[in-house]
Amino acid sequence: MEDRYPIPDMADVELVDVLRALADPVRLDIVRLLGDGEPHLKSDCVAERPDLHKSTYSHHFKTLREAGVTRMIVEGRSHQIRLRKDELAARFPGLLDSVLAQGPTTLTREFLTDPGAAPDSSD
Amino acid sequence: MEDRYPIPDMADVELVDVLRALADPVRLDIVRLLGDGEPHLKSDCVAERPDLHKSTYSHHFKTLREAGVTRMIVEGRSHQIRLRKDELAARFPGLLDSVLAQGPTTLTREFLTDPGAAPDSSD
Repeated sequence: MEDRYPIPDMADVELVDVLRALADPVRLDIVRLLGDGEPHLKSDCVAERPDLHKSTYSHHFKTLREAGVTRMIVEGRSHQIRLRKDELAARFPGLLDSVLAQGPTTLTREFLTDPGAAPDSSD
Repeated sequence: MEDRYPIPDMADVELVDVLRALADPVRLDIVRLLGDGEPHLKSDCVAERPDLHKSTYSHHFKTLREAGVTRMIVEGRSHQIRLRKDELAARFPGLLDSVLAQGPTTLTREFLTDPGAAPDSSD
């Protein structure tokens, strides 16, 4: 059966593509939410920013997966997302740790303070 | 006299902006060239990829500077660029080290092997 959610081999993942995937406030927040390396329900990531449209999240999930940052785990109707934390740490030592060490992005901080004020950051 | 090359206070620099600035193969190579934290002549960065137009480099230099990654040092007619290495290390511990630990980007590796084959990566 064709894999609906293909991921690149980590050996083929380029630093510039990972940086590009991380260089977005919503995706940074998703990565931070997934920071423990455990599988998380997609809906948990979406719940953090209910002001964003579902299709915007789908785009961000796809961008992260295709860049080699995350993988999708499908079991029946359950869709979970997991950070490829150990693989990334082996391929780009220190990168993910330095990113995870930072707090929520300004966008999310502003949203959490005043949900009505945050701009839609779809791209 | 107005500063022709203003830079943001490091305290105001956001991780996502630094990641966005780094998320380009030419800019990654410039950062790698500047990795020792010493001032370097602009022309030394440009010499690495003579296939790119001067205006493309100007765009990349500006992007790096405005994101807080580099500063310009002007003395008379000499223009030098320096990585804000210590400031970045204090603000985003480990980030720059993890990026500098990687070798040249694929783009530059390909160019160094076959200068005629590298695509123009201006953006």
